[in-house]
Amino acid sequence: MIKQLLLGILCGAVILTVGILIGNYGITKSSSSGPSWVRDVAKDVDESFIEKFLSEVDNKNIEENLRELTKVPHMATTAGDEKTVQYMLKRWQDPDTGLDEAWREEYMVYLSFPDPKNPNKVTVVSPSDAVLHTAREKEKSYTTDQEDPEVVQPYAAYSPAGHARGKLVYANQGKLSDYQDLNNTLDLSGTIAITRYGGAGRAAKAINAAPFGVIGVLVYTDPGDINDGLMSDINETYPNSWYLPPSGVERGSFNTHYGDLRTPYLAAKEDTYRIPVEDITGLPPIPIQPIGFEDAYALICELAGEAAPPTWQGGFNCTYNFGGPGFKMTSAFNNSDVKLDIYNSGELRNSSNVMGVIKGSVEPDRYVIYGNHRDSWVHGAIDPSSGTSVMLELSRVLGQMVKQGKWRPRRSIIFGSWGAEEFGLIGSAEYAEQYITRLSERTIAYINVDIAVFANAYLRASGMPSLQNVIFTAAKQVEAPGTNSLSVFDNWIRYSNRTTTKNETIPKMGYLTGAGSDYAPFVHYLGITSIDMSYTYDRTKTKARIYPAYHTAYDTFDYASRFIDPGFVSHQAVARTAGNILIRLADSLLLPFNCTDYTELLKAYLDVALNLYKTQLQAREISMEPLKRAVASFSSAASHLDEVIRSSDLANETPLKVRRINDQLMLLDRAFLNPLAFPDKYAFRHVIWTSSSAGKPTFPGLADAFAKAESSGQSSDWDKVHYHLSVLSQAIEGAANTLVDVI
Amino acid sequence: MIKQLLLGILCGAVILTVGILIGNYGITKSSSSGPSWVRDVAKDVDESFIEKFLSEVDNKNIEENLRELTKVPHMATTAGDEKTVQYMLKRWQDPDTGLDEAWREEYMVYLSFPDPKNPNKVTVVSPSDAVLHTAREKEKSYTTDQEDPEVVQPYAAYSPAGHARGKLVYANQGKLSDYQDLNNTLDLSGTIAITRYGGAGRAAKAINAAPFGVIGVLVYTDPGDINDGLMSDINETYPNSWYLPPSGVERGSFNTHYGDLRTPYLAAKEDTYRIPVEDITGLPPIPIQPIGFEDAYALICELAGEAAPPTWQGGFNCTYNFGGPGFKMTSAFNNSDVKLDIYNSGELRNSSNVMGVIKGSVEPDRYVIYGNHRDSWVHGAIDPSSGTSVMLELSRVLGQMVKQGKWRPRRSIIFGSWGAEEFGLIGSAEYAEQYITRLSERTIAYINVDIAVFANAYLRASGMPSLQNVIFTAAKQVEAPGTNSLSVFDNWIRYSNRTTTKNETIPKMGYLTGAGSDYAPFVHYLGITSIDMSYTYDRTKTKARIYPAYHTAYDTFDYASRFIDPGFVSHQAVARTAGNILIRLADSLLLPFNCTDYTELLKAYLDVALNLYKTQLQAREISMEPLKRAVASFSSAASHLDEVIRSSDLANETPLKVRRINDQLMLLDRAFLNPLAFPDKYAFRHVIWTSSSAGKPTFPGLADAFAKAESSGQSSDWDKVHYHLSVLSQAIEGAANTLVDVI
Repeated sequence: MIKQLLLGILCGAVILTVGILIGNYGITKSSSSGPSWVRDVAKDVDESFIEKFLSEVDNKNIEENLRELTKVPHMATTAGDEKTVQYMLKRWQDPDTGLDEAWREEYMVYLSFPDPKNPNKVTVVSPSDAVLHTAREKEKSYTTDQEDPEVVQPYAAYSPAGHARGKLVYANQGKLSDYQDLNNTLDLSGTIAITRYGGAGRAAKAINAAPFGVIGVLVYTDPGDINDGLMSDINETYPNSWYLPPSGVERGSFNTHYGDLRTPYLAAKEDTYRIPVEDITGLPPIPIQPIGFEDAYALICELAGEAAPPTWQGGFNCTYNFGGPGFKMTSAFNNSDVKLDIYNSGELRNSSNVMGVIKGSVEPDRYVIYGNHRDSWVHGAIDPSSGTSVMLELSRVLGQMVKQGKWRPRRSIIFGSWGAEEFGLIGSAEYAEQYITRLSERTIAYINVDIAVFANAYLRASGMPSLQNVIFTAAKQVEAPGTNSLSVFDNWIRYSNRTTTKNETIPKMGYLTGAGSDYAPFVHYLGITSIDMSYTYDRTKTKARIYPAYHTAYDTFDYASRFIDPGFVSHQAVARTAGNILIRLADSLLLPFNCTDYTELLKAYLDVALNLYKTQLQAREISMEPLKRAVASFSSAASHLDEVIRSSDLANETPLKVRRINDQLMLLDRAFLNPLAFPDKYAFRHVIWTSSSAGKPTFPGLADAFAKAESSGQSSDWDKVHYHLSVLSQAIEGAANTLVDVI
Repeated sequence: MIKQLLLGILCGAVILTVGILIGNYGITKSSSSGPSWVRDVAKDVDESFIEKFLSEVDNKNIEENLRELTKVPHMATTAGDEKTVQYMLKRWQDPDTGLDEAWREEYMVYLSFPDPKNPNKVTVVSPSDAVLHTAREKEKSYTTDQEDPEVVQPYAAYSPAGHARGKLVYANQGKLSDYQDLNNTLDLSGTIAITRYGGAGRAAKAINAAPFGVIGVLVYTDPGDINDGLMSDINETYPNSWYLPPSGVERGSFNTHYGDLRTPYLAAKEDTYRIPVEDITGLPPIPIQPIGFEDAYALICELAGEAAPPTWQGGFNCTYNFGGPGFKMTSAFNNSDVKLDIYNSGELRNSSNVMGVIKGSVEPDRYVIYGNHRDSWVHGAIDPSSGTSVMLELSRVLGQMVKQGKWRPRRSIIFGSWGAEEFGLIGSAEYAEQYITRLSERTIAYINVDIAVFANAYLRASGMPSLQNVIFTAAKQVEAPGTNSLSVFDNWIRYSNRTTTKNETIPKMGYLTGAGSDYAPFVHYLGITSIDMSYTYDRTKTKARIYPAYHTAYDTFDYASRFIDPGFVSHQAVARTAGNILIRLADSLLLPFNCTDYTELLKAYLDVALNLYKTQLQAREISMEPLKRAVASFSSAASHLDEVIRSSDLANETPLKVRRINDQLMLLDRAFLNPLAFPDKYAFRHVIWTSSSAGKPTFPGLADAFAKAESSGQSSDWDKVHYHLSVLSQAIEGAANTLVDVI
C-alpha cells in the first residue's frame, strides 16, 4: 500500500512535471514569445527577396517603357508632358503592379519659351542690311521624330527677348577669364560673342560677357568637345553613329539658381507671393541663343583678328581667330554683323510632379525616396526617359510583390516623377520647399536616377561616402552586361578606382557637389543623404563632354536603342543595382550607413586645407585648430558609434535602441546644414557638398572664401574666411554631436 | 482494479492538467512574456512616484539653497559667480543626491561693465561749471548686504562710454512716440532726456532718442510704476516693506538682440570669429545711465516747460514738465546742465553654464530640459536664485531616487544653470547655438523657472498651448499655499481665467512671445515646446511693474524671506508643480501634448487676422485663403492625430508606433520655424510666437508687416505683407504635415 502510494506519488510527480514542461514549452509558440510585433520589429533585409527582385527586373519591359515615354516630345507643361503624367499615374495606380497610392501635385512655376509664331533668328547681315546667312531654325530630320511639330525650336530658356546686332568675336567657353583675355586684345563693346558649350555654366556665358560691353551671345557644341572631332552626317554622325549631326543644338536652361525663380524658399502655389520678374537674379542680362556646329563653323572660320590661343581651338578644320571684331576681309561676310532676334517670353505654367508610395510596415514614418524628372527638351529618350523607364520597371516589380501580399518594406518608399527639371530642378525643389518639415524629419535617403545610361561601359555613382558600402554591396550582386560574368562592382573597379587610406582598392565614387539633377534640393537644401547613379562612358573610347545627342532633337528611342544601350542590358543593370540599394535602405534593421567612410573624406579635406591655407591663415592670426578639433570629434564619434553597433545584438534589444542609432545615421547629413553658410547661393546649405569655384579638393566654402581673400587682399574678405571657418567647424562639431552617445 | 486504474488515470489527467496550467501560467512572469524589454518600453508615468516626489520637496531645503546662493553678489563672470558654479557642481556631483553627471561649459562672451576705479557720474552743473547735484553712485545700505564691495555700481550694460552735457527734458518712457511728441514741442538737439522704466525696451530708450538729437539718456524707476506710489524709506519702503527704497536702481542690459553679441549664430568659443564691436547692432548709440527715484525726483520736479500730458505723469508729488529744455527759472538748477560721465567698457569674459543630466532608461535620446540662469546683478535672491533654489531641491529629490536605484526616467533629463543671462540670455543662447543639432533632433520640451516667486498669490504659467493640459494636471495635484487646501489649479483659476471655445472656464496661460528669459533661444531659435512659470502677484493688491527690488541691491535673502515668500511655501508649490510636469514629460509613454489646444489658438489668431486685414488685403489682391486653408489643415490633422491616439492601445502595440506619434508631437513646434521669416530679428524664427510691436492678438509677423504697410502705404511694404502671409501659411501647413498620417 505504501509502495503503491509512493508509486502513485512518483507517477503523479512525473506527470505533473511533464505537464509543467508541456505547459511551459509545448505551447510556447502561440503565446509565450510575447506580443506578435516582437518579431516584426527585429526583421532584417531578406536576401532571398533581393534575389527574387533581381531576377524579375526585365530589360524588355524597360525597352517598352521607353518606347511609350518617348512617343512624342514632352517638354515641361506641354500636352506631351501631360501624356507622361497620365502614363505614370496609370502605371502607379495599376491594381496588379501599381503602388499603394499615386497622385499628382501641381505647382505654378515661371518658365521661359520661344514664340512658335515668331521663331528666334540668328543671321549675318551686311552693311546694306542684306541677309547673308541664316542659322537653321530647326534641326535636320533623319527620322520622323524630328518632324513632330512639337519639337521646340532650339533656344536658351530665360534669355531675355531682344535684338542685338554687332561684330562677332570668339570668346572660347565664355568664362570670366575668357572675356578678360579677349578684352585685353580688342574692344568688346557692341560685339556679339560666340562661345562653346563647356567650362562655364550656361547663364554664366552671358552674365560674364555683359560687363565688357558684349550685347549678345551665341553658344554651340564644338565637334571637338562632343563628337571626338567627327562632323559629317554622310557617314560619321547620327543616324550612322551616336555622334551629333551638324544641325544638332543643345537646348538648356540659362539660369543660375535652381527651383522656381519667382518663389524662392516657398512652394509655388497659386496664391504664393511671387517676386517681380525684374528681381530674379542669375539670369542672362543680354540675349543668348544656341546654334548647331554647322552654323558655328560658317561663322567661326570666317573670323578675322589674331589667332586664339591653343586651348581655345576646337574641332573645326580652321584656325579659331578672336574676330577683328568681325569677319575676315576675304570672307563673304566681310564688314557684316551678326544679328540676334530673340522672342522668348516668361510664363507662369502649371507643372506636375507625379508621386507614388509604398507604405512601410514597421516604420512607416521613415522614407526612402526614389526619383527622376519626367520632362524632357524634346523626346528625351536618354534624358530623362532612360531613368524613368528604369524607375517604372523597378516600381513594377516592387508594386507587384506588395499587391500579391508577398512583401511590404519596413520603411515607406516614396517615388517622385518630377516636373520641369530642365528649367532648373523645379518640381523637386518645390516639393522640397513644400514638404521641408516632414522630409527633414523622416527621410533616410534619396536615390536619383536621371539619365540611367549615358553609355554602356560601367557604373557611375555619386553620393555621400556613408552610402559607399551599400552601393558596393548591391553592385556586387548584379552582373555587369557585356562582361564575362563580372559583377557591376568588379567591372566598375576596372574602369575607375582609388586606393583608400587602408590601402584597399575600391571603385571611385563621385560627389554631389553641383546642382546637375534633382538630387540638389535633397542634398543641398534638405541635407538628405543621397545617391545619383547611371551607367557611363569608357573614356578610352570617347572624350565627348556628354552623350552627343544631349538636349537635341536626336535624343530619341531610335538613338537610345541603337547606339546607347542595344538590348537595354545596361538599363537593366542600373535598375537592379538601384533597386537593390533601395530595398536595403528600406528593409535593413540597421541602416546600411557607414560613418567612418565619411570620416575618411573629412580627413582628406582637412589635410588639403591645412596644406593649402594654414601658413597664410596663421600669418593673419586665424587659427585652423577649431576645424582640426571638429574633424577629430567627428572621427572619434563615428568610430565609437561603429563600436556600439558592432557590440550590440540589435535584433534582440529594444527596437528603440535600433531606432536611436538609425536616427543618428539618418540625421548625420542634416547636421551639416547651415542656412547662413552661403548667403550668395540659393538653397545651398550643406557645408561639405556645396559647389565651389576654387577647384580644390577640400571644404568648398573655405576654398572659395580663401580664393576670394587671396585675390582681393581685403581684410573684410579675410574676415569672411575666418567666419566661414567658424561656421564649418561648428557644423562638423554638430555632425559629431549627432553621432556621439546620445546622452 | 479497473476502478483504481481509472482513478489513477483521472488523477494523472488532473495532475497533468494542473501541471500544464502551472507551466503555462505559473511561470509566465519569468520567461514567457517575450524579451525582458517588452514591459519596459510600455511603462507609463507612475502616479505613486509623483506622490512621493511631491511629498519630498522641502521648503526648508529651498530656503537653505537660497541662503547659500545669495551669500555674495554673483554677477556674471565675477568671483561670486564662480562660487555659485562650484556650488552647483558640488550639489549635482553629490554621490547621494546628485545627478548621473555634471560639468561646466565655458563661452568667451562680450560683456559690459562700469569701471570700479572711475565710477559713472550723473551731475547737475551750473554755467560756471559748479556741481550743484550729484546722483548717488551706490544704493543706501539697510543691511550689510549692500555694503559688500562686490555690489556693482548701477549702470546700463552696453551703454557706450562718453561724456554728454545738455539741458534736461522729460521723455516719459522713451518710446519712439514719446520722443516724437516731445519733439513737436521743443528742439531736442543737444539735450539729455530722463525717462521712466517701462513701455519700451531698455536699449530702445536711447536708440529712439538719438535721431532727435538727444545726446544722453537717464532712466529711473518711477514710484508710481513700482511702489504703488510710496516713496519714504522711513516707514514705507524696504526694510519696512517690499517697496523699493528711494536710492534703489534697476540695473540692466541695454541691448536689443539676445545671445553673445559678437558671435551671432555661432557658439562663442575662444577661436570663433567675432564681428567687430562697431558692427554690433541694437546697442544704445548715446550714453545712458539708470538712477534712483530719489535723484530723479530732484531733477524732474525742477523741470521747466509745459506740463507733460496726464499719461506721462508719475508718482512724484509735482507736475512732470517737458523741460524748457532745462530747469525752471525758480529752481536752484536754473540754467544748469545735466552731465553724464560714463566709463563702461566692453570685455571678453569666460562665462560658464553648469550642466547636469539624468540619463533616460528607455529613450535616452529624448531630452526634457529644465533650466534657469545662475548670474544675478547683485545678490539676486529673487532674480534668479529663487528659481535656482527650486531647481536644486527638485534635482535633489530626483537625483536621490536615481542614486538609490528607485527610479530612472524613461527619457533623459538635462538640467542647465545658465551663465550671463542678465547680459542677454547669453549662456542659454550659446548652448542652443553650439548644440543646435542634437537639441533640435531630440528635445521634447524645455521648462524655464527663472524668478520662481514674484509674489505669493497664484501660479503664472506661459507656454505653448499644447502643454496646457499637462500643466493643469500637475497643478491639480499640488496644494496652493495660504489657501484652505485649494489646489494650485483651483487657486490659479480664481485669479486668472478665460472661457474656452467649448465654454469651459480654465486658468489663463500666457505666451512666450518675448525674450524675457532663457526660454527665448529654445522657443524662438530652436522651436522647442516650452514653459516658463512662477508664482506671481495679486493684482488687486499691487500695480507694481515688477517686484520692487528687481535688479537692485535690495534683492537679498532678507528681502525674499521676509517680504516675497515667508516660509518658502510658494517656492515649494512651484517646485512641486514644475517637478510634476518634468516627471510627466520624462516618463509618460505618450507625450502629454495636446495639439487641439494649439488649434484653438491658431483659429483665434486667424479670426482676428481676417477681421483686421481681410478687406484691405482683398483690395490689394492679396488673398488670405492660403492662411485659412493652412489653419484648416492644421485643425483636421490635429483632430485626426487625437483620434489615432484615442483609438490606439499604445501600451500593447509596437513601441515604434508610440515613438512615431511622440515624434510628431515633439517636432510640432519645430515645424513652425522659418529662418527667413524675420530677417530683422536676431534668432527669432518661430512664426507663431515671435515678438510683435503691433499689439494685436494675431500672427505677429503678419500684424507687424500689415502695420508697417498701412503706415507707409508703400507697395513694397504691401508686398512684404503678401510675402509674410506665404511664409506663415507654408509654416502652418508644415506643422500640419508633421501631424497628419506619416504616409
